[in-house]
Amino acid sequence: MSTSTYHHGNLRAALVEAARALLRDMGPADLSLRAVARAAGVSAMAPYRHFADKEALLAGVAAQGFDEFAQALRAAAASGPDPSAALKAQGVAYIRFACGEPTLFRLMFGPVIGGQDALHILRVAGAPAYQALQDAVCAVFPAAGERERDDYTLACWALAHGLACLIVDGNICAGATSQDIEAQSSRILELLFAQAASR
Amino acid sequence: MSTSTYHHGNLRAALVEAARALLRDMGPADLSLRAVARAAGVSAMAPYRHFADKEALLAGVAAQGFDEFAQALRAAAASGPDPSAALKAQGVAYIRFACGEPTLFRLMFGPVIGGQDALHILRVAGAPAYQALQDAVCAVFPAAGERERDDYTLACWALAHGLACLIVDGNICAGATSQDIEAQSSRILELLFAQAASR
Repeated sequence: MSTSTYHHGNLRAALVEAARALLRDMGPADLSLRAVARAAGVSAMAPYRHFADKEALLAGVAAQGFDEFAQALRAAAASGPDPSAALKAQGVAYIRFACGEPTLFRLMFGPVIGGQDALHILRVAGAPAYQALQDAVCAVFPAAGERERDDYTLACWALAHGLACLIVDGNICAGATSQDIEAQSSRILELLFAQAASR
Repeated sequence: MSTSTYHHGNLRAALVEAARALLRDMGPADLSLRAVARAAGVSAMAPYRHFADKEALLAGVAAQGFDEFAQALRAAAASGPDPSAALKAQGVAYIRFACGEPTLFRLMFGPVIGGQDALHILRVAGAPAYQALQDAVCAVFPAAGERERDDYTLACWALAHGLACLIVDGNICAGATSQDIEAQSSRILELLFAQAASR
């Protein structure tokens, strides 16, 4: 497909999609804008209409990941009426997301993207996911003050993030089925969340 | 210094030390055995006496990191008579270690090392650190059964690991002093550990 067949927004979306697909098979270090252009069926220069450099494109991919991540967290939290169960379900969704697309997860949270402009894109894109987590925490601790609420949010985030990283990086659950991973994660989240909730 | 001035064990240690020093300023991807040999003052071929390839050397660096990590965790847990406080101190020590040498921390736990032989070295080297964590957990929950003990160990590990990763990767605490980071980490660890301990 020639570049001219893409409208402005379509080209951008097509490049992000192509980059994301390539990242399922290679690390960000091996990705080139040229390869992304080729995969999207556009000229080698076309990506520069939307992205200053490779890092800007990677930030675009990570931002798309954060959109879907926030949706997944919100959907999980809305899965039932009990706030503690909803928070636990959200933690499991966090880990499921990470395991489903590890390279994308590392792009969103890892040290891959380092430039200030790209990091700013990540911070803005990540805000709704953080808000989804904080809302779920607030439902469990409705009487918490601001600092307590922030601390609990970070505690729940760190626990889910730690499990996700340990699994994705192969430190635990090596060779386990996704079913086993979710069952164990659920048990671990319950262990600390349930205690905190009963405070 | 020529290779001949190193005894067998000394050369190995010198290469690990040189690699570790270089990794403070560059990522593992940019490290070469040749540069390590140069930094250690030995011939380009000398590293091959001890390491089959770069990954084997990286595994050696990570193994040295795990030795020091286990010592730091044990020392923190021995810092006081109260088991809950000791577990919290260990969590803070975990995070301090990660922040002190982020590249080494990522080498130990991250996806950098992927070969089966090298991963085996990491698993063996990491066992004492895991044991230190499990011992501290057992002191808090002396009556726990095997599975509960394993679950609590993983929960505490994941919480400390998640905080460490979020900090080291710049997702939280950006620009904070190490004192502030440790104070906040301590509060977060307390939040979930203290609840779990009061069970």
